[in-house]
Amino acid sequence: MEIIVAENSGLCYGVKRALRIAKETRKMKKGKVFTLGDLIHNPQVVSELKSQGIEPTEKLEDIKEATIIIRSHGVSPEKYQMLTDKKVEIIDATCPIVKKIQKLVERLAKGKEEIILVGDRKHPEIKGLIGYSQKKAIIVENEDQVRDLPYKKKRAVLAQSTQDLSLFKKIVAALIEKTKELKVYNTICLSTQTRQKSTSELASRVDTLFIVGGKNSSNTNKLFHISKSILTNTHFVESAKEIKPEMLEKAKKIGISGGASTPPEAIEEIVLKIKDSSERQIHRENIIQCQS
Amino acid sequence: MEIIVAENSGLCYGVKRALRIAKETRKMKKGKVFTLGDLIHNPQVVSELKSQGIEPTEKLEDIKEATIIIRSHGVSPEKYQMLTDKKVEIIDATCPIVKKIQKLVERLAKGKEEIILVGDRKHPEIKGLIGYSQKKAIIVENEDQVRDLPYKKKRAVLAQSTQDLSLFKKIVAALIEKTKELKVYNTICLSTQTRQKSTSELASRVDTLFIVGGKNSSNTNKLFHISKSILTNTHFVESAKEIKPEMLEKAKKIGISGGASTPPEAIEEIVLKIKDSSERQIHRENIIQCQS
Repeated sequence: MEIIVAENSGLCYGVKRALRIAKETRKMKKGKVFTLGDLIHNPQVVSELKSQGIEPTEKLEDIKEATIIIRSHGVSPEKYQMLTDKKVEIIDATCPIVKKIQKLVERLAKGKEEIILVGDRKHPEIKGLIGYSQKKAIIVENEDQVRDLPYKKKRAVLAQSTQDLSLFKKIVAALIEKTKELKVYNTICLSTQTRQKSTSELASRVDTLFIVGGKNSSNTNKLFHISKSILTNTHFVESAKEIKPEMLEKAKKIGISGGASTPPEAIEEIVLKIKDSSERQIHRENIIQCQS
Repeated sequence: MEIIVAENSGLCYGVKRALRIAKETRKMKKGKVFTLGDLIHNPQVVSELKSQGIEPTEKLEDIKEATIIIRSHGVSPEKYQMLTDKKVEIIDATCPIVKKIQKLVERLAKGKEEIILVGDRKHPEIKGLIGYSQKKAIIVENEDQVRDLPYKKKRAVLAQSTQDLSLFKKIVAALIEKTKELKVYNTICLSTQTRQKSTSELASRVDTLFIVGGKNSSNTNKLFHISKSILTNTHFVESAKEIKPEMLEKAKKIGISGGASTPPEAIEEIVLKIKDSSERQIHRENIIQCQS
């Protein structure tokens, strides 16, 4: 059995940076330290952070005299103002790439183009960007939604930084028919693009592929769908516990990839579990051979 | 046997207008009347115009004291200047839609974006547009050519007015990966878009389809490829003479479509030939039945 871990898989620069900032903040501050929502979309990591005294919260009401960390996805200007008004200490760990997208949306909102955001309606990055567009931007999640849009003279389209590139391309192609002048900003970060490419390349040369990461992670879900469209035998697992013997029964060449919020330990855990299962299988085959 | 002529097939507004202008010019002028190149990409129509005293020419050297008509595809500013210098009378029959694209390219050439023209390198419209870009524009004919382009911060992409929309979409999608900020101008004229749609819809509901038009017509060639990709049994014919009995042998439902330079008479001629062949076939079948 061969195990191949995808190149460019796992934690991205923005998430690594947010984790580092959170841990440094914890060391430096004596009072309570909160993150506004889960720091990353990975329950295991969030739980570890909690044990270190870094609590996620959505409720701003109860927070007083504390430090609050803005996660890599960023927040809307309204939410930032709410935090400023509370006079809590703000540590801004917004990913610098997301920050650039926020500035772009802010600038576009002053122009005449209708703004189209390609992303997940419920994703915190998109919620933040909507705020920067003065709530004027339209969210598009799939090609079908473009069909309902009217013809417009001017539009600008951009993507959530962790969007699926092929979906973004399809939506842009559909918008061409509906728009006379369309400005396309490829705001999908390079780390996401290379991760998606590595995963799809890997999916085409293995017989089984495991996508490792939080089930609540938008970009990891996208990786799963990209791989699944190439290789039916793709499994989405959050931890090694979810790997069942039947998933490995006929596997000879196994691929592993992880999202932007998947820590290296999670990938390592999966590799070890697969190796262990493989050894057990060889051991069991030996026993059967001896008995026969 | 059923015959269906595609909606929105045949002569477009720009070509009809150029033909009208040429005929009116002929009536009004006593001297020689030339068109700069074939007025439309249809040998039959060009030959008919010649018989009326409207001669196509590429050689400007010999033209003196004549009227020269610029065809619907337009010309580059350099060529226009050459005509002006010759002091011949110029009648400009450039399609108003192409004129708008020329102005757009002229404006873009003053900006910072690299200009990408999606079209056929040898097409007169593209040659004219290259002139308006101060020869700075890059011509892209297919997706493969995008792979050779370097990454750029800013690009603007537009299409020959009679380009295949699905090819334009594919090229834009490929450019997204190579460009940070891409301005997309859908300059494919509405007449071309609806003609392509009608033809592909027709190709999916008939068993045989005839594309009628000049073999030298770029947009008619595109119609042929669009239909052929849906229906193998697609034939490209310039005139009724090219229809062979084997093309109609198993045909029950026949579709017909024509390019922007295909006159209604050419389509009518094909319809009559098919009807005639069909009646002969019925007659032959009756004879065989009587003999047996």
